[in-house]
Amino acid sequence: MRKIAIDAMGGENAPEEIVEAVLKAKPELPEDKFIFFGDEGKMKELLPADDDQIEIVATTEVILDEDEPVKAMRTKKDSSMVVAANWVKEGKADALLSLGNTGALLTCGIFIVGRIKGVARPGLMPTMPVESSDDGFNIIDVGANATSKPEYLLQWAEMASYYAEKVRGVSKPRVALLNNGAEFDKGDDLHKEVYQLLQDSSLNFTGNIEGHELLQGKADVVVTDGFTGNAVLKSIEGTGSVIIHMLKDGLLNNGVKAKLGALLAKDALKSVASRFDKDKYGGAVLLGLNSPVVKQHGRSDARAVYYAVKQIDKILTEDLTNTFKQEFSK
Amino acid sequence: MRKIAIDAMGGENAPEEIVEAVLKAKPELPEDKFIFFGDEGKMKELLPADDDQIEIVATTEVILDEDEPVKAMRTKKDSSMVVAANWVKEGKADALLSLGNTGALLTCGIFIVGRIKGVARPGLMPTMPVESSDDGFNIIDVGANATSKPEYLLQWAEMASYYAEKVRGVSKPRVALLNNGAEFDKGDDLHKEVYQLLQDSSLNFTGNIEGHELLQGKADVVVTDGFTGNAVLKSIEGTGSVIIHMLKDGLLNNGVKAKLGALLAKDALKSVASRFDKDKYGGAVLLGLNSPVVKQHGRSDARAVYYAVKQIDKILTEDLTNTFKQEFSK
Repeated sequence: MRKIAIDAMGGENAPEEIVEAVLKAKPELPEDKFIFFGDEGKMKELLPADDDQIEIVATTEVILDEDEPVKAMRTKKDSSMVVAANWVKEGKADALLSLGNTGALLTCGIFIVGRIKGVARPGLMPTMPVESSDDGFNIIDVGANATSKPEYLLQWAEMASYYAEKVRGVSKPRVALLNNGAEFDKGDDLHKEVYQLLQDSSLNFTGNIEGHELLQGKADVVVTDGFTGNAVLKSIEGTGSVIIHMLKDGLLNNGVKAKLGALLAKDALKSVASRFDKDKYGGAVLLGLNSPVVKQHGRSDARAVYYAVKQIDKILTEDLTNTFKQEFSK
Repeated sequence: MRKIAIDAMGGENAPEEIVEAVLKAKPELPEDKFIFFGDEGKMKELLPADDDQIEIVATTEVILDEDEPVKAMRTKKDSSMVVAANWVKEGKADALLSLGNTGALLTCGIFIVGRIKGVARPGLMPTMPVESSDDGFNIIDVGANATSKPEYLLQWAEMASYYAEKVRGVSKPRVALLNNGAEFDKGDDLHKEVYQLLQDSSLNFTGNIEGHELLQGKADVVVTDGFTGNAVLKSIEGTGSVIIHMLKDGLLNNGVKAKLGALLAKDALKSVASRFDKDKYGGAVLLGLNSPVVKQHGRSDARAVYYAVKQIDKILTEDLTNTFKQEFSK
């Protein structure tokens, strides 16, 4: 039986929504066992007793969003996140899911779970929606690394392409490089060099992609340095939420006419929202570690966590980590 | 009389919308003379004869969007953009407005108009809308430089802060650094160093800002390296246009009910769109040149160009360039 470590205490809706999500996914995933790390009293209250697919590991501390990542890992040794990461390291669990402090999870991932030999730097990779289809695209790295070197980006592209193919079912994923123009000689030295590395690789490299094209569905995998990727991901999310917020506000606070209009247009507006539902793609994967570590948004509800659980099952089924281990140890 | 050079042939709607915009702004700007560079026949057809505020300079070539910038500047010597830039260089015009090829305009700006002595690198700076007010914010550099050094960002922040104060009327502009986290030690070496430079400057530096906060109105000036700024600006614009496009599509192609809803909600939706109307802020300024050079979007209509003309008048009135010349030659 495969074992998925669940950090039950991370995120705004912990542990209730996390438990609800796992219990929903459980019957669909009979091969998986779920190990919950968290407050024993709460866990026993929320979880069924005598279930072969469920195990509870009592922890007494919680890493908070405001905690400094490295310090938190070192001092909160009995936190749900640190203990869960240690179980993965020791082989008592095969993957880790957390909704907690992103920086702390990256730190635990890199320093406890550890990176695959031959992988220079792990990269953080969410799946984002696109305008034209339900396929979405992967973007890597969105912030695990403040400084990036050309060879990191090549490895991220290789791992992300394999992920897109095996986990998302995309045949011959189109890989593009986020850059400041379409031509091959665009960008700074880093991006010019990565362009050549991708060009010379066996990946299905389709060239540069620019910021305004990201949501248009022109690539299945976008590779970027971690600094730019972080800024771009947050800008896209921020722009989306500002526009949606202003629309809601405009429709609800502009008199009866606007409200009635909103009511009539509800289904149409919902269909737009559902296309931009990134929850269905699961969480962000920290690619390049000895075992899969997935970070789901801290504000996620049970539905989002459900998809992240299914995503981890798929990553384990496809045995991504062992493939990467073989590939990069060459 | 101040003289504004108008590249009448750049952009999708040239020259008609450009001429219309200038003719609309002209009576409000009696101190300005407008020198149109473009096809003589078309100019004479569209412009009034015997007007002291109008002059036509016949040019025979046009730089196209697909032209390679440096090559275009060198070979299309009789293009509206190159001739206009030469007039500015020679002091026969005081500022330049163009809707043409961005790369070519940057090239003409840097190599023909020239940079201010003491300014290491000019930076491209648009004014963007924010959610909470009509104030907007400036972001610099959005792509004039693929590679940036700490001292460039400090100078951009200084020039942009002065612009925000004098041209946009913001008192003590809040200056923030685009970074991958809130804390002072975030980012790569470049951004850590810039943080210290800004901290030690006389600017009203408010710390780091992250991508999702840009449209929230937390800063009046955001400084960023040109590579990240380019990706972020395009991502914001791309996300906005994808969402608006999908909303329109959803409301118009989902039957009578959705259409009726859209009709009723029209005013509310318009008020959202008007908050995100970036046309009213004018074009992107290439800050740090010997004379103001403003780039307006290639797709701009007469209304957008009108605001860019008013913006240039204000930059000249406030004598920004001479202030920078004195400041940076110290």
